[in-house]
Amino acid sequence: MNVYDLTVPQLVKMLKNVDRWLEAAISYAEKKKFDVNNLIKFRLAPDQLAFDRQVQTMCDNAKFIAGRLTGKEWPNHPDTETTFEQLRSRIALVITYLDTFTPEDFVGAEDRKISLPWMEGKWMRGDEYVTQFALANFYFHAVTAYSILRNNGVELGKRDYIGGVPMRS
Amino acid sequence: MNVYDLTVPQLVKMLKNVDRWLEAAISYAEKKKFDVNNLIKFRLAPDQLAFDRQVQTMCDNAKFIAGRLTGKEWPNHPDTETTFEQLRSRIALVITYLDTFTPEDFVGAEDRKISLPWMEGKWMRGDEYVTQFALANFYFHAVTAYSILRNNGVELGKRDYIGGVPMRS
Repeated sequence: MNVYDLTVPQLVKMLKNVDRWLEAAISYAEKKKFDVNNLIKFRLAPDQLAFDRQVQTMCDNAKFIAGRLTGKEWPNHPDTETTFEQLRSRIALVITYLDTFTPEDFVGAEDRKISLPWMEGKWMRGDEYVTQFALANFYFHAVTAYSILRNNGVELGKRDYIGGVPMRS
Repeated sequence: MNVYDLTVPQLVKMLKNVDRWLEAAISYAEKKKFDVNNLIKFRLAPDQLAFDRQVQTMCDNAKFIAGRLTGKEWPNHPDTETTFEQLRSRIALVITYLDTFTPEDFVGAEDRKISLPWMEGKWMRGDEYVTQFALANFYFHAVTAYSILRNNGVELGKRDYIGGVPMRS
């Protein structure tokens, strides 16, 4: 298995799933006649990131994963979104960035030294980064965003989380 | 990257992390003087699995991932746990099962046909199963269990979720 297949297509798929959760929230708010952007500062614990920061962080995680594993620069996205539509645009920007990557960009990614800001100059190998940190962290923010919407009544289920999967016969 | 490294060691690490979240819940309940098992039926939405089922499902996901990718049988664990200590024993049983696997068991796992109960005879390849379904699903239940505890005041943070990572110099 190569690092590209493990990351870019699945990150894009999950970001598209998240975009559909935002659409579902918008539909739910219209049905219940409230401003969907009221959801943006909800959180599951008072010392946890709110919904907007969960989505922004998940977007950053996705671009950092691709950028760090390939040594390519990533675009800067200041966390200025205050509406669901702006969060959807942020997701779209990250998908556009991820779409620029090819499997060739990831040659040698598993051996690349990855140093995260809090590692104080220490590093992990690319394969360790993917397996032990990056995917776990990305899913953390995706699931937390999903749970905040579920906790507020948005009509979502497990299929909306997983998205489509191959069905071979 | 091979399928063993992507799955077994990280699943074991996450299960050990989850066990520490349960310990943190037990400590929190002692401090606040409530029965920790009051937490067992909490959920973040009325149509979502409760805490006990999140942990049980995550345990099952972990053993299914290893079993399905290698064609080895897995032990049956009826979902009879009603206490935190019983959930901790369930986690320990799954870790013991996962510890029986070696990288050699996973040779060819990426090409194995994986058919899930709801696929009606269709299948995905092992690599697709890991990347597009199994890890996403495992993390879903782990993060949801974590969020239920956080939502109830248990003192946990991101480091408790991620656990230790390699720090090379």
